Amino acid sequence: MAHISSASEYVLHCLLYLAGGKAGVREASVKDLAELQGVPVEYLAKLFTKLNKAGIVVATEGVKGGFSLARPADSITVLDVVDAVEGDKALFDCKEIRARCAIFGDDPPAYATDGTCTIHAVMLDAERRMREALAQHTIASLAARTLRKLPAEYGPQIVHWLDERVGSRRGGRPPAK
Amino acid sequence: MAHISSASEYVLHCLLYLAGGKAGVREASVKDLAELQGVPVEYLAKLFTKLNKAGIVVATEGVKGGFSLARPADSITVLDVVDAVEGDKALFDCKEIRARCAIFGDDPPAYATDGTCTIHAVMLDAERRMREALAQHTIASLAARTLRKLPAEYGPQIVHWLDERVGSRRGGRPPAK
Repeated sequence: MAHISSASEYVLHCLLYLAGGKAGVREASVKDLAELQGVPVEYLAKLFTKLNKAGIVVATEGVKGGFSLARPADSITVLDVVDAVEGDKALFDCKEIRARCAIFGDDPPAYATDGTCTIHAVMLDAERRMREALAQHTIASLAARTLRKLPAEYGPQIVHWLDERVGSRRGGRPPAK
Repeated sequence: MAHISSASEYVLHCLLYLAGGKAGVREASVKDLAELQGVPVEYLAKLFTKLNKAGIVVATEGVKGGFSLARPADSITVLDVVDAVEGDKALFDCKEIRARCAIFGDDPPAYATDGTCTIHAVMLDAERRMREALAQHTIASLAARTLRKLPAEYGPQIVHWLDERVGSRRGGRPPAK
C-alpha cells in the first residue's frame, strides 16, 4: 500500500465537492458521495468519522443530512486531511540498528545511541519536506484548480444528481427542476 | 510497513561501513556485515543483490571476499540506495476516481481524465520534494557525519572484529594483531 493511500484520495475528492469546487455542493450524505464517485460506502463512512474527529467535517441535519466542512476550505490543508485519515504513519520507521553492533554485546555505549541516528535524520528531513508540500495546499486552492478544469455544466449536473437522490429518499419522486 | 523500510536502514548502515565512515573498512562479506549489526543474513544478501544490480556495490574476491562500493561514496546518494532496495514505490497510488463519477456512466468525458488529477499533482509535488531531500545526502556525507559522533577506538575495534572473522574462516586461528 502506498504511504498516502486511496483513503486520502477518496476523502479529498469528497471534500472538493463539499467545498463547492467541483459542483457548488455544500453538504451531502456519505452514501451519496460514495455512490457519486463509485467508492465503497462503508469504508467512506469510517473515513468521515475520522474527518469528523479531526474537526474537518461536521454532521448536518435535515433531509440532505450528511456532512459539510467544519471550517473554511482555505483553512483545511491537504496535510490536515492526510493526517486525519492515514493516522500517525512515519515515512521511515527507524529500528535503531546502530545499537545492535556486535562489538557492544548487550550493552551499547551512550555514544552509539545518543541523539538521532544520522540515517534517521535524513529520513526525517525528507518527511518534513513532504509534509511542508502537503501543508501548502488547501481544500480551497485544490477546489479552485479543479473548477478551472471542469465545464460549466458539470456543477449543475452534480447538484441535480444529488437532489434526485434526496428527493427519492423523501418520497420516491424526483424534485421539480 | 513504512514507505522507506528497514531494508534501507540495513543497507545504508552497511554502506557507511564500506565507505570507511564507521570504521575504515572498505570491503566485507554480507555475512559479516549482517552479524556485525544483528540483521538477518539471507535478507541482507538479497538486498546486496539489488545494490549490485543498481551499480552501488561490486563483489570482491579473495578471503575477505564480499562487497565494496562500486563507485566513490560521494557519488552514491541516499536516494540511489533507497530506490535500489525499495524499488519503484510511489508515495501515492492514484486510483483515478475522478473518472468514476456517476454522472459519466461508463464513458467519462475527456475533461474528466485529461492531464494529471489536481490531487495527484499535489502528491507528486510532495514526493518530488521528499526525493530531493534524499538526493542531497550521499554515503560520503553521511559517513563523515557518523564518524564525528564515534570515538577514535570504534574503527579499530570493528576492523579487529572483522579480521578475526576472516581469520577464523581461513584456518580457525585469529589473525596476528
